[in-house]
Amino acid sequence: MIKKISITTRSRAEFIDITSKVQDFVKESKIRSGACQIFVPHTTAGLTINENADPSVKHDILNRLERLVPFDGDYSHTEDNAAAHIKSAIVGTDKTIFIEDGEMKLGTWQGIFFCEFDGPRQRNIFIHIAGK
Amino acid sequence: MIKKISITTRSRAEFIDITSKVQDFVKESKIRSGACQIFVPHTTAGLTINENADPSVKHDILNRLERLVPFDGDYSHTEDNAAAHIKSAIVGTDKTIFIEDGEMKLGTWQGIFFCEFDGPRQRNIFIHIAGK
Amino acid sequence: MIKKISITTRSRAEFIDITSKVQDFVKESKIRSGACQIFVPHTTAGLTINENADPSVKHDILNRLERLVPFDGDYSHTEDNAAAHIKSAIVGTDKTIFIEDGEMKLGTWQGIFFCEFDGPRQRNIFIHIAGK
Repeated sequence: MIKKISITTRSRAEFIDITSKVQDFVKESKIRSGACQIFVPHTTAGLTINENADPSVKHDILNRLERLVPFDGDYSHTEDNAAAHIKSAIVGTDKTIFIEDGEMKLGTWQGIFFCEFDGPRQRNIFIHIAGK
Repeated sequence: MIKKISITTRSRAEFIDITSKVQDFVKESKIRSGACQIFVPHTTAGLTINENADPSVKHDILNRLERLVPFDGDYSHTEDNAAAHIKSAIVGTDKTIFIEDGEMKLGTWQGIFFCEFDGPRQRNIFIHIAGK
Repeated sequence: MIKKISITTRSRAEFIDITSKVQDFVKESKIRSGACQIFVPHTTAGLTINENADPSVKHDILNRLERLVPFDGDYSHTEDNAAAHIKSAIVGTDKTIFIEDGEMKLGTWQGIFFCEFDGPRQRNIFIHIAGK
């Protein structure tokens, strides 16, 4: 059971909270116990699970990644998105979350974020649920 | 089958080897073949699979992460743990390890480490085993 | 169903595209729908899913990781591979990719790369497929 979610990003770099979209699919699947896997089929974007209470956290992560891997650097790749590829390699493009009693077992402060590093544009996210 | 392990960390930043705790649960599960997934439900901690023979390796990883993402930086988040959130995004909070013949298929030098970036405190780790 | 792939790396640091090797195993498995998990049982290597069209992308990733975590640094670990352990912790050693209609659901530009950070040498990669 694989679902495709589409989102539109609005900045070159931003984190978009997709927790409720994933939760909707978990409910729809009627799976009570198992695992939910999320996969981003892009090479200049990624996924992170992090705090969704204070929005300053996502800005701090984005800013620090920008300092470590600046948009303008001495890169060979010529499409103005080498830094985005590198950031994608650092945060990764897949996450697994458990399902118990029909709910994702996230921690109190955890949300699931799509990480845009080369927007704005249309993006896809695949979700796969296994269990019973 | 989800198990919760609780651990107590003793420093602001440290790596704690949880390999034997996970192995105990794999044995208890009686699963012979499948996958063991580990998930940390915290936003200022993470997981890494790395060398558990020479303890200097974990210190080198911690020290380099601290240099790349210093505790004191120009962060917006005000709880003195912005760096911990960023380190969590870099190492990640979920890992999958295969099970064969009832044992985790880790490499010779691999151990599973809980990464504390904002301790000391009480922490939880979820383990999920799928297979037969 | 776990398969071991062996590869020989030729440089201290390089990314090797293993997409077709993984795809061969997916076909061989006859699994039509499920998930393919890849695991590197080494502590100085890793995995990344990134662009496989322009080879400059992998060089940009390697070069930036080298700048962030230089081979020569003030490390405690004495085997001349502390930086390799740290890079492994950053990119990670496991990836999950979905399978639909008997094919891996990778994005248009995505390839699966083995990341050598302490070569050249012989390396193993484990692949596990679950589904039906």
